[in-house]
Amino acid sequence: MLTIGVDIGGTKVAAGVVDDDGTIVAQALKPTPADRPDQVAATVAEVVRELAQDREIEAVGVGAAGFVDETRSIVRFAPNLAWREEPLQKKISGLIGLPVVIENDANAMAWGEARFGAGRGQSHIVCITVGTGIGGGFVFDGKLFRGHWGMGAELGHMQVVPHGRLCGCGQIGCWEQYASGNALVAEARHIAAVQPKRAEILLGLAGGTIEGEEVTEAARLGDEASLLAFASIADWLGQGMADLAAVLDPGCFIVGGGVSRAAEFFLDRTRETFARRLTGRGHRPLAEIRLAELGASAGVVGAADLARLR
Amino acid sequence: MLTIGVDIGGTKVAAGVVDDDGTIVAQALKPTPADRPDQVAATVAEVVRELAQDREIEAVGVGAAGFVDETRSIVRFAPNLAWREEPLQKKISGLIGLPVVIENDANAMAWGEARFGAGRGQSHIVCITVGTGIGGGFVFDGKLFRGHWGMGAELGHMQVVPHGRLCGCGQIGCWEQYASGNALVAEARHIAAVQPKRAEILLGLAGGTIEGEEVTEAARLGDEASLLAFASIADWLGQGMADLAAVLDPGCFIVGGGVSRAAEFFLDRTRETFARRLTGRGHRPLAEIRLAELGASAGVVGAADLARLR
Amino acid sequence: MLTIGVDIGGTKVAAGVVDDDGTIVAQALKPTPADRPDQVAATVAEVVRELAQDREIEAVGVGAAGFVDETRSIVRFAPNLAWREEPLQKKISGLIGLPVVIENDANAMAWGEARFGAGRGQSHIVCITVGTGIGGGFVFDGKLFRGHWGMGAELGHMQVVPHGRLCGCGQIGCWEQYASGNALVAEARHIAAVQPKRAEILLGLAGGTIEGEEVTEAARLGDEASLLAFASIADWLGQGMADLAAVLDPGCFIVGGGVSRAAEFFLDRTRETFARRLTGRGHRPLAEIRLAELGASAGVVGAADLARLR
Amino acid sequence: MLTIGVDIGGTKVAAGVVDDDGTIVAQALKPTPADRPDQVAATVAEVVRELAQDREIEAVGVGAAGFVDETRSIVRFAPNLAWREEPLQKKISGLIGLPVVIENDANAMAWGEARFGAGRGQSHIVCITVGTGIGGGFVFDGKLFRGHWGMGAELGHMQVVPHGRLCGCGQIGCWEQYASGNALVAEARHIAAVQPKRAEILLGLAGGTIEGEEVTEAARLGDEASLLAFASIADWLGQGMADLAAVLDPGCFIVGGGVSRAAEFFLDRTRETFARRLTGRGHRPLAEIRLAELGASAGVVGAADLARLR
Repeated sequence: MLTIGVDIGGTKVAAGVVDDDGTIVAQALKPTPADRPDQVAATVAEVVRELAQDREIEAVGVGAAGFVDETRSIVRFAPNLAWREEPLQKKISGLIGLPVVIENDANAMAWGEARFGAGRGQSHIVCITVGTGIGGGFVFDGKLFRGHWGMGAELGHMQVVPHGRLCGCGQIGCWEQYASGNALVAEARHIAAVQPKRAEILLGLAGGTIEGEEVTEAARLGDEASLLAFASIADWLGQGMADLAAVLDPGCFIVGGGVSRAAEFFLDRTRETFARRLTGRGHRPLAEIRLAELGASAGVVGAADLARLR
Repeated sequence: MLTIGVDIGGTKVAAGVVDDDGTIVAQALKPTPADRPDQVAATVAEVVRELAQDREIEAVGVGAAGFVDETRSIVRFAPNLAWREEPLQKKISGLIGLPVVIENDANAMAWGEARFGAGRGQSHIVCITVGTGIGGGFVFDGKLFRGHWGMGAELGHMQVVPHGRLCGCGQIGCWEQYASGNALVAEARHIAAVQPKRAEILLGLAGGTIEGEEVTEAARLGDEASLLAFASIADWLGQGMADLAAVLDPGCFIVGGGVSRAAEFFLDRTRETFARRLTGRGHRPLAEIRLAELGASAGVVGAADLARLR
Repeated sequence: MLTIGVDIGGTKVAAGVVDDDGTIVAQALKPTPADRPDQVAATVAEVVRELAQDREIEAVGVGAAGFVDETRSIVRFAPNLAWREEPLQKKISGLIGLPVVIENDANAMAWGEARFGAGRGQSHIVCITVGTGIGGGFVFDGKLFRGHWGMGAELGHMQVVPHGRLCGCGQIGCWEQYASGNALVAEARHIAAVQPKRAEILLGLAGGTIEGEEVTEAARLGDEASLLAFASIADWLGQGMADLAAVLDPGCFIVGGGVSRAAEFFLDRTRETFARRLTGRGHRPLAEIRLAELGASAGVVGAADLARLR
Repeated sequence: MLTIGVDIGGTKVAAGVVDDDGTIVAQALKPTPADRPDQVAATVAEVVRELAQDREIEAVGVGAAGFVDETRSIVRFAPNLAWREEPLQKKISGLIGLPVVIENDANAMAWGEARFGAGRGQSHIVCITVGTGIGGGFVFDGKLFRGHWGMGAELGHMQVVPHGRLCGCGQIGCWEQYASGNALVAEARHIAAVQPKRAEILLGLAGGTIEGEEVTEAARLGDEASLLAFASIADWLGQGMADLAAVLDPGCFIVGGGVSRAAEFFLDRTRETFARRLTGRGHRPLAEIRLAELGASAGVVGAADLARLR
C-alpha cells in the first residue's frame, strides 16, 4: 500500500509517494507560499493530488516546523509561517478526501531515519538535526516519542550556558546558539574578524559576508579559523549528547541536518567529547553516534510511514 | 494479591507488603550491611521472609541505587555499595524462591508516585528526587521509562554550567552541584563565611559546621543567608525543569526527596523560574510542578507495584 | 613657545602646531603610507616641515598605536603598521633636526584631555578610549603613567570573562570583546539575527551588513535591538570601571573614542552600573565619569604638550 | 635616625623600632582590643611608649586594614574594627607627642618589601598579599601609589568571574573568591566532599573541618585534592597578574601573605599561567614574579620607613 509524505519547509513543499519499504516511488515539489500561510494547505493539496493522480493512496503524512498538538491535527505555533492554532489536518483532509496525520518535521525525520535509515535495528534512538538551528526526535521502545502535548525533543533549546547568548526563542544560552550551523558561521566570522591571519583562506573565498558553505569549503582547504569553528561546534555537540545520554540513555544517536554533510570536520571530535563527558563513563556502554542516511528525504519518508501507522 | 517492595538504602533496608491499591499493609526494617556488600542479598531475604511469614506473596520488587541493567537483574555499578555487575536478582530469588525484579531506586520511587501518589491521572511524568544529590525517574505513556541500557533519568548529571563545579561523578558543572541538598548547604556555608551578618540566625543555630537541617530551621526563623541559599537552588531547579520540559514535554513534574520537605522555601520560586525560562512559553501549556505525596515509602510502594506488573 | 603634535593613525597622519594653552594654531594632514611602514617617518617629517615653515618650533611629540619603549624612542610592536623595534624617534629627528618624543597614542590622548580637556583640575585620571577596541591612559599625581616598559594602560585586554570570546591579542575574554564599538556591533548583529522583530528599524537602515553608525542611528530612532546592544556595552563599561577603581582609585574617568559620540545611549547606564558594582561602595567617594572634550584632536594636543614637557 | 612602625592586626598590635637600613632593632607586641575599637589608639600609644623609652624616635608610622584617607590621617572604614571616619592620626599623636603617619596595612607591607625586601632595585612594583583575602600595594617610579582618595590597590576586589561567587565586600565574582587562602580551603573542601578518594591524606589529617594548614601539609604528602586546590589558585593568581600587567606594566610582582609560605605548591604554575595569559606576550618583557622576603615584619618596616619619609 502506498502513502504520501509531505515536508513543509520554509521555502518549498516537498512530497513523495512512499511504499512500505520506505522507498520513494514518485516525487513532487512546489514553492512554499511563505507570505500567505493560509494558502499552505492548498499547496499541500495540489502536490498530493498531482502525485495521487494515477495511484491508490491510503493516507497522507505531513511534517511541519512548529509545535504540533497531541492529537496530531493542529499546529499550535510555527515560528516561520506565522501559524497560531492552525487546524492543518482538517484543512488538508477537507481538500483531498484522504486521512491526514500532522507531525513535527524533526519528529518525521527522526522516524524516517529510525525505520529506514541509520536507525534500523535500534529501538532507543535520539535523532539530532543540526541545521541553522537544532531540532530533534526520539524513538523509545520502537515508538515515536511525542511528549504530553506533542512538543517534546526541542533539543536546540536546552540551556547550556547560563547568562549565555540570546536565542530566537526568547531564552538565553540555548544549545543551538553554540552547536548549530548558525553557531558555526558566527564562530568563523568572529575568528576572522579578530584574527584575520588565521582566516586567510576563508576571507579569500567569502568576499563579503561569510556564510556556511564557505566555512565548509575553507575547512576543506585547511583554513585554520574554519577548522576552529568546526571544533567548537563539535565540542558543544558532544557535550549536549552527553547531557542527553544522562537523561535518555539511548542506544544510538543519529546526526542529520544540513551541517551533517560536513561531518568529516566535526563528527570524530564530537564522538570523543561525548565519550569524555558522559557521566558514569567506564561503567556503562557508549551509545553509537551515527550519521543520518536519508538526507533531505528523511522527512518525507518518515511522514509517509507515520501516515501508514496512524 | 500482595507483593513486597524493598528499598535498599545506604544505611537501612526498608521493606513493605503492598496491596494492589498501593497500600502498605506491613513493614520491616534492617540495617544495611554497608561494609559487606555481598551480604545485602541475605539481608533482603531476611526482611522478605519475615514479612512473608503468614502471607501469600506473589513477587518481590527491589529498588537499589545504581545502574540496573536492561533485564532488571544485575546492578552494574552502585556508587555506595561497591557493587560491580552484581547479580542481585538471582541471589535474592535463590534465597527466597519468589520472582524478583530489580529496579533503580529513583525509578521505583517515580513509579510509586506516578501510580499511587502525586502523579495519579497523569501519563507523562518527570519525577525529580532532590536529596544530597539529584535523581530522577520518568513515566511516559503510563509506562516506566528505562532507556536502552536501563540507565536513563540520571538527571543530576546534566551539565548546567560549563567549566563549573567538580562533581562526584567525575564530570564538571552537573545539575546536582547547583540544585541539590548538598548545593543548598554549600551555598549557605559560603554566604555565612563571607557575609556573616546575613547569617546570624544560622550561625547561632549551627554552632560548628552548618548542615541541612539547620539551613531549613534558620530559613523558618527568617535567616537571610538561608533564604538566599534556598532561592539559589529554587532557580537552578526551575531552570533545569525548563530544560527537561524542552526535551521531554511532560504533563507534570513531581518533586520528592529529602529537600522537598522544605518546599515552602523554594517551590513557588521554582515554579516561577520554570515558567519564565521555558522555551516557547506563551505558545504551550505549562506542566504542573507537584510535591511528592508518598514520602519515604514511595520506593517501597513503587518496587512492589513493579514486581506485580513484571 | 610652540610645539607640534603628530597623531599617526591607521589611515592618516594628523598634525598640529600647539601653543602652551593647548590651542591648535595650525594643522596639516597626510595619508598614512600604511603598506610602506618604513615611509611613515618621512611622512611625519613632511607634515612637520610644512607646519614649521614660518614658525619657531621647540619640539615634536608623536603619538602612535603600539608598545612604545620606556625611553620613548622606539616602537617595539605596532599591530597595524607591522613595526618591530622601530627606532621612530631617531628616524624622525634625523629628518627634521628637532627634539622628538614618541608616545603611545592612547597615552597622548589621555594627556591632552587631562591637561586641556575633561580632566582639567584633576590629578588622578583614568582615560578610556572606546573605539573599535579599547585603549587607555593614566595620569597619577598630575603625571602621565607609563609603566615599567612603557606598556601600561592596555585596558582593553583585562580579562573580564573566563573562557570568553577570542580576542585579536590572542587571549580570551578581553574587555574590548564586550565593551568596545566592535562589541556593540557584534551584539546588535546577533540580536538582529535571532530576534529580527526587535531590530526592524536597524535592519531597515542597514540594508546588508550592520555597521556601527547604523546602530547609533537606529538607537536614535528607538530601535529595540540597538538600545539593547548599547545597554550591554554600558554595563560592561561600568563593570570594568568598577574593577579599575578598585585597583587605581582615580578621582575621575574620562570616556573618549568614537563610541563616546553616542554617549546619550550608554553613559548614564554606565554610571549606574559603575556605582552599583564598586567595591566598598557607600564607604568611599564615587569617581566622576566625564565625557572627553577634545574629540579627535586630543592626541595631537597631548603629543605636543608632552614634547614641551620632555 | 630611628622611627617606629606599628602594624594593627585583627588580633595583635605589632611594633618595631627601625633604623634607616630597614633593620628592626627592637620589638613589642600587645593584643588588639578588637571589641573596643576606641581603645586601639591607646594600645598603639602604649607599645610606642614602651619602645621609645630609652631611644630618640623621630616619627611613628601605623599600618591598619581599611580605607585610609588621602591625608593619611583618618581611617574612613575598617572592615574588622568597626571604624568609621576614625581620626587615628590625631588620637595617636595626641597621646605620644610624635609625628604620626597612617597608612593602609597592605600599602605599608608593599613599601617595606619594595625598599628593603624582594623589591630592592625595582621602581615599578605590584605587591600582592595572599592571605585569607587578597590585598595589594603599588610602587610606581619609586613612590608608594595611593590613588586619589587613598583607596587604591584593593586587588582582591577586581571582578574575575561575572555572575560568580558572592564576596564579603557585597559584590560578585571578586578575585579573592578564587585566588586567596580562603579560596584554597574552599576548593580543597569541595573536592574532598565530592571525590573523597582523591583527598584521603587530607581527610586523614583534618579529622573534622579542613583548614588551610592541613591543605598545605597534605599537599606536602602528595594529596591529590590538595594539589588540585593549589593548582586552582595558582591559575587564578596567574590570570589576575596578567590582567594587572595589562593595566600597570610593572617590572616585578611580589607575592606575600600567609599563603606565600606554601609557594612551592603554586608559584611556578602561577608564573607559567601569567606568561601564557599576558596580552602582547612575545612582544614585551615578562615581569618577574618574586616571593616576599620580609615575612610578617614587612608591615612594621614599611610603616616605619613611611614615617621617616613623611
